[in-house]
Amino acid sequence: MARDIKKVVLAYSGGLDTSIILKWLQTTYNCEVVTFTADLGQGEELEPARRKAEMMGVKEIYIEDVREEFVRDFVFPMFRMNAVYEGVYLLGTSIARPLIAKRLVEIARETGADAVAHGATGKGNDQVRFELSAYALNPDIKVIAPWREWEFKSRTDLLDFAEKNQIPVAKDKRGEAPFSVDANLLHSSSEGKVLEDPAQEPPPYVFQRSVSPEEAPDKATTIEIGFRKGDAVSLNGKDLSPATLLAALNDLGRDNGIGRLDLVENRFVGMKSRGIYETPGGTILHTAHRAIESITLDREAMHLKDSLMPRYAELVYYGFWFSPEREMLQALVDRSQENVEGTVRLKLYKGNVTVIGRESDMSLYSDALVTFEDDRGAYDQRDAAGFIRLNALRLRTLAMRDRLTRKD
Amino acid sequence: MARDIKKVVLAYSGGLDTSIILKWLQTTYNCEVVTFTADLGQGEELEPARRKAEMMGVKEIYIEDVREEFVRDFVFPMFRMNAVYEGVYLLGTSIARPLIAKRLVEIARETGADAVAHGATGKGNDQVRFELSAYALNPDIKVIAPWREWEFKSRTDLLDFAEKNQIPVAKDKRGEAPFSVDANLLHSSSEGKVLEDPAQEPPPYVFQRSVSPEEAPDKATTIEIGFRKGDAVSLNGKDLSPATLLAALNDLGRDNGIGRLDLVENRFVGMKSRGIYETPGGTILHTAHRAIESITLDREAMHLKDSLMPRYAELVYYGFWFSPEREMLQALVDRSQENVEGTVRLKLYKGNVTVIGRESDMSLYSDALVTFEDDRGAYDQRDAAGFIRLNALRLRTLAMRDRLTRKD
Amino acid sequence: MARDIKKVVLAYSGGLDTSIILKWLQTTYNCEVVTFTADLGQGEELEPARRKAEMMGVKEIYIEDVREEFVRDFVFPMFRMNAVYEGVYLLGTSIARPLIAKRLVEIARETGADAVAHGATGKGNDQVRFELSAYALNPDIKVIAPWREWEFKSRTDLLDFAEKNQIPVAKDKRGEAPFSVDANLLHSSSEGKVLEDPAQEPPPYVFQRSVSPEEAPDKATTIEIGFRKGDAVSLNGKDLSPATLLAALNDLGRDNGIGRLDLVENRFVGMKSRGIYETPGGTILHTAHRAIESITLDREAMHLKDSLMPRYAELVYYGFWFSPEREMLQALVDRSQENVEGTVRLKLYKGNVTVIGRESDMSLYSDALVTFEDDRGAYDQRDAAGFIRLNALRLRTLAMRDRLTRKD
Amino acid sequence: MARDIKKVVLAYSGGLDTSIILKWLQTTYNCEVVTFTADLGQGEELEPARRKAEMMGVKEIYIEDVREEFVRDFVFPMFRMNAVYEGVYLLGTSIARPLIAKRLVEIARETGADAVAHGATGKGNDQVRFELSAYALNPDIKVIAPWREWEFKSRTDLLDFAEKNQIPVAKDKRGEAPFSVDANLLHSSSEGKVLEDPAQEPPPYVFQRSVSPEEAPDKATTIEIGFRKGDAVSLNGKDLSPATLLAALNDLGRDNGIGRLDLVENRFVGMKSRGIYETPGGTILHTAHRAIESITLDREAMHLKDSLMPRYAELVYYGFWFSPEREMLQALVDRSQENVEGTVRLKLYKGNVTVIGRESDMSLYSDALVTFEDDRGAYDQRDAAGFIRLNALRLRTLAMRDRLTRKD
Repeated sequence: MARDIKKVVLAYSGGLDTSIILKWLQTTYNCEVVTFTADLGQGEELEPARRKAEMMGVKEIYIEDVREEFVRDFVFPMFRMNAVYEGVYLLGTSIARPLIAKRLVEIARETGADAVAHGATGKGNDQVRFELSAYALNPDIKVIAPWREWEFKSRTDLLDFAEKNQIPVAKDKRGEAPFSVDANLLHSSSEGKVLEDPAQEPPPYVFQRSVSPEEAPDKATTIEIGFRKGDAVSLNGKDLSPATLLAALNDLGRDNGIGRLDLVENRFVGMKSRGIYETPGGTILHTAHRAIESITLDREAMHLKDSLMPRYAELVYYGFWFSPEREMLQALVDRSQENVEGTVRLKLYKGNVTVIGRESDMSLYSDALVTFEDDRGAYDQRDAAGFIRLNALRLRTLAMRDRLTRKD
Repeated sequence: MARDIKKVVLAYSGGLDTSIILKWLQTTYNCEVVTFTADLGQGEELEPARRKAEMMGVKEIYIEDVREEFVRDFVFPMFRMNAVYEGVYLLGTSIARPLIAKRLVEIARETGADAVAHGATGKGNDQVRFELSAYALNPDIKVIAPWREWEFKSRTDLLDFAEKNQIPVAKDKRGEAPFSVDANLLHSSSEGKVLEDPAQEPPPYVFQRSVSPEEAPDKATTIEIGFRKGDAVSLNGKDLSPATLLAALNDLGRDNGIGRLDLVENRFVGMKSRGIYETPGGTILHTAHRAIESITLDREAMHLKDSLMPRYAELVYYGFWFSPEREMLQALVDRSQENVEGTVRLKLYKGNVTVIGRESDMSLYSDALVTFEDDRGAYDQRDAAGFIRLNALRLRTLAMRDRLTRKD
Repeated sequence: MARDIKKVVLAYSGGLDTSIILKWLQTTYNCEVVTFTADLGQGEELEPARRKAEMMGVKEIYIEDVREEFVRDFVFPMFRMNAVYEGVYLLGTSIARPLIAKRLVEIARETGADAVAHGATGKGNDQVRFELSAYALNPDIKVIAPWREWEFKSRTDLLDFAEKNQIPVAKDKRGEAPFSVDANLLHSSSEGKVLEDPAQEPPPYVFQRSVSPEEAPDKATTIEIGFRKGDAVSLNGKDLSPATLLAALNDLGRDNGIGRLDLVENRFVGMKSRGIYETPGGTILHTAHRAIESITLDREAMHLKDSLMPRYAELVYYGFWFSPEREMLQALVDRSQENVEGTVRLKLYKGNVTVIGRESDMSLYSDALVTFEDDRGAYDQRDAAGFIRLNALRLRTLAMRDRLTRKD
Repeated sequence: MARDIKKVVLAYSGGLDTSIILKWLQTTYNCEVVTFTADLGQGEELEPARRKAEMMGVKEIYIEDVREEFVRDFVFPMFRMNAVYEGVYLLGTSIARPLIAKRLVEIARETGADAVAHGATGKGNDQVRFELSAYALNPDIKVIAPWREWEFKSRTDLLDFAEKNQIPVAKDKRGEAPFSVDANLLHSSSEGKVLEDPAQEPPPYVFQRSVSPEEAPDKATTIEIGFRKGDAVSLNGKDLSPATLLAALNDLGRDNGIGRLDLVENRFVGMKSRGIYETPGGTILHTAHRAIESITLDREAMHLKDSLMPRYAELVYYGFWFSPEREMLQALVDRSQENVEGTVRLKLYKGNVTVIGRESDMSLYSDALVTFEDDRGAYDQRDAAGFIRLNALRLRTLAMRDRLTRKD
């Protein structure tokens, strides 16, 4: 009872699972498949994906380096908000999904495809993120989620299908992987299998892009990040493009044991899951952004942002990047970042990111202002008495009411 | 033009500044002074305060150990909320003020005093916190804030007054302190003078209750904290009272270089200030509490808490502890903590607090539930399709509207 | 492919649709059906429902008057929050669903049934409200939603089935109703068919429980409502039970043309729908509650409530009554209502509900307090200068920064 | 101890009180006074103000019609948010203050004045609104608030001063007014004296710009308002400028008894006050704006706006119009209004504003979309089952946990 599909654009990594999906789409829907393989900074060669796709008869193969777009249009806007999900997660997986979905939909239009397909399972958040984004960008698009549709019951079924269809299976993929991984320029996540018991510490081999704090150098590294309009623009005095800058921070973070996270999170589909995340450069960037804001952002602007951050993070995590509500919040945040510029100095040492200095021409804590406060009499300590007394007035009224009406 | 005051209760530390205040109150208001000296865990002997007060003719001297009350009734309720001000500050100074104010007001009632006095300056938050709390608890109380009232213009004026009034001045207090300090069982803060330039790293001698990460042991320490109803109740399997437990965490944090913070914050009175804070035990506790919540708290309960946390932290920071709005938020939070119990294992290493395990009989991530999900068919992957499609419906409607009405 | 069901409890109105459902359940699932018919104040006789159920062979028939429970445990707690969905809707249908679901689940336990069933369609909110409530109260309960399951395509199919199964169809039910109605003690809603075009004014015959403002008396009616702990407890000086009081307000509202609403609302399932609602008594109660709060509730307590009200209303509308987040918000609200007591006088006139007086022993606007402010010098106008200057400090700092750094 | 002031710009109405202030400024500060008199639509002749100012020797007299700016740049942006303070107040007085302050500061710059002055008392909100706005626009401006500064103790003192200084006092101003009034194109407010007891109904003579519902015509008036980008642009098919449109709505509202409000509100300075407000046109506009949003605004966009509305209203009420936080919220709101266009039909009848139709090319409830939903299979009722089951998953998990761990 497969739907009538003429052509489908598949988010194709070149790995075993999406190769199986590619073949399954061809055989199940009897349709043409277009592949899209993106370099999001996951650190894998993309050319093998091309060869495999060609081998399976794909005629339209899209392989693209989207790293700059990813950091500039997705990661940086999110970091302007200091977005953190459930107090700890920097949303490294979440933020990559809308970009992939956007390219799938665009390629569908270019190639005349009527559907898109992805390799996310039916229990996770990624399916939601892919599909909400796709529907938001093209309301008529059809979405194929093979993991929710096919009849395979086990890893063995999948491998049988691969074998039967001449899909090459590397020796080390025969057994089940001890955990599953997602990676991009912002982070790597590891989930499942050996990591499922939240009472158990993750084994060291889970970590892939950072040394442990113990293994990091015994000497601190000091760096300086420059900001303009809320975005990082330079490292140690040198202007860098968004993706180049994040990559450089990743190297620094990796070497200094920064950005590891072991958490239990709440998925949008209603269950808790345990993940091990590494966000080396993002962790540095988050700390630096808060620091530059601390001297350039007004108190109420900051508090308003902070009060809306959990909602924004939830939207990104749930997959509502392309939604009016995320865009409204973004408009609010971006309005606040106009003067968020200057430099932050940080010390990186065995897992710690420590702010050791912030400077800005836009500082609301500059010498000129401090002097203004003293010399021009801008701050009169007696003002504080009135300030406190009027802030207290309603509290005193309450206390008097309570005293007058106490029933005991 | 001093007001008519008969008797005043002074928050008295025994140090030079509050000794000068004590004398100033006696001479300016010609009134009786009652002293209140609290052991909040600041790590100072209190008996010298008694001797000094006696020497200055004080007849009613209150010296009290309020550490358990401080942690049980102020610190722990705040930690149930995971309160953090402006993304980083654990509110260590803020949370001590309402307790001191409460005791001042109570002692005023006991001793028939008509006023309370404190040693906070006119530029800071503490004056607000003391006075809002005092007014909320007794609407008729008079508040004397000597720093806002007296005519002294400089440190020299103060020392002259001390000398003239036979107040002993220790040799090392003759010069101005290079920065000012506040401490209690939860944290120490250092501010002012050498710390005023936020571009400059704080000198090492500023830190008082923690070693630096660099100086901390090369080997990690593993601990286990037990929780009941959202509060920490045991350490490494041993039940401890609130204050004893926090003290033990402070020792662990101090030894492992944990809880140092260098920040620029926004004061309630409208200016930015720079502080160096040390919260060794509190930093561990905060991380542990989030971890036990991660397996025992429902997603929406957590997100609701998180969305209100900035407001709660602001209230505590501004001094509105004794206010209906803080109490309403507390009622909301406490309602969520009933099942927040279990144990968290953490690794402490050179400034890092790493969660390495969480367990709970109240877990929403227990084997029993995971099994229920698979075996009883509680999770049907096909449900995800409907879930996504209805979540997408409004986004698709928007996309269709935009397509139909596009003006270009 | 019907699931294996042994016994099901059906929310049974006695009307044609739920009679068809009853029979369909018996024939499709070949299971025993228990009926539950509630008197929620919808204004219909319930005994016919008993006779029909008996006629169809039902052995366990529950007919209950739940009006007091409905108003006391559902309507009143919601009115403490002043809950309004999307600025206008008083949630009259939404709030009845969790009570019905709760009784279905309880009766299932009492009768050993393994499923519950309801007559809500697959496009609306009510299915969500019923089912979320049922699952929250019994995680193993099975839910049957016939409108989503059966194969009937049209009204004719349904009537054929009724005829074939000897279900009596009243003559006036042969044609399709021009719109569909839901009613309980709080409100009546009318939706669908002739009401579907939001550009068209509803025809007068849609309204069922109120006269139009034009038809209402030319003379105003003045009433007085008494409150205790945020709930209405008396009318015109006479203590009344919750349901009796609401019924009396309904009569007053009906006669005076009060509480009609024509709106387009956003359903949880993602579409907009148009409804005509009548909430005569609830509209009066809402206005009166705000008025008694205006003199007894502290400003920040009120503003905190107001800021959370949209979220609370959304939860009730979506069906999350039995959820930790609604209960947390309720704890917050209830904490605020302790002193919300006193009386409110209102004028009812041709659709208008006008507050013309409020009094309370708990007033924060009492003579005693006003006098206190003047006579005891509690309000010193000079305090306002300091209050304003410190509130302005950050704005002045911003203005100075902007002036110093202006780039043009 | 008056400060050194060279020239001051006074917000001058031409009435007795500001005439006294004018003279008092001249005599107390011995400075030049510039007068600014604005036509905000308060319905008073402004030429007498010119003559009086000339008579008192004022050389720089500014008299300006700012009605269009008022409605376009202040009232309309606020109405895009549906701002309502404390559930009922449409902020008619609040919104006029920042405009006056802005012109005062601009005129100060043009005329080389170093100060501005206003006639608001020390107990109210208006002083805060004027002064916060002034400081935000010029951090160095000096503000003179005569009511907080002068020594007059009573009305008699004021009249004596007037007499002594040849300020003409109209006969009917000799006695104290029974209440005080503020008016502009959006509303009129009446406060104080005879209105101070919130238990007493206001006497009919208080109302100034509307008939009572009882006096309004027995026949309804039907009107149609057109919207573009969230702002009203036409009435009954005719394009009108902002101020002209609001004036026309005022006439309609006045004639039909619309927009009267009797409330107790919480002032920013900490006390409750009672006011009688009339906002005839604004009440109609508010209802119409909600109605056009109901068909053109996405659900989540609306709910996000609604959740932030109380904060926005608070900011306007407190006087923080010219603040980063208000501007950030405005950016969010304005982002949502791009497609809020179409027409709303309303019935005005004896105090009631009833929506009877809404239409829009941008409707998210259009036939095209409804058809899309049915015909293209966009809504599959079976999707609802999955939607509900995943929304219920966490609730079921909670219920199972509770059952497993129940302690009784």
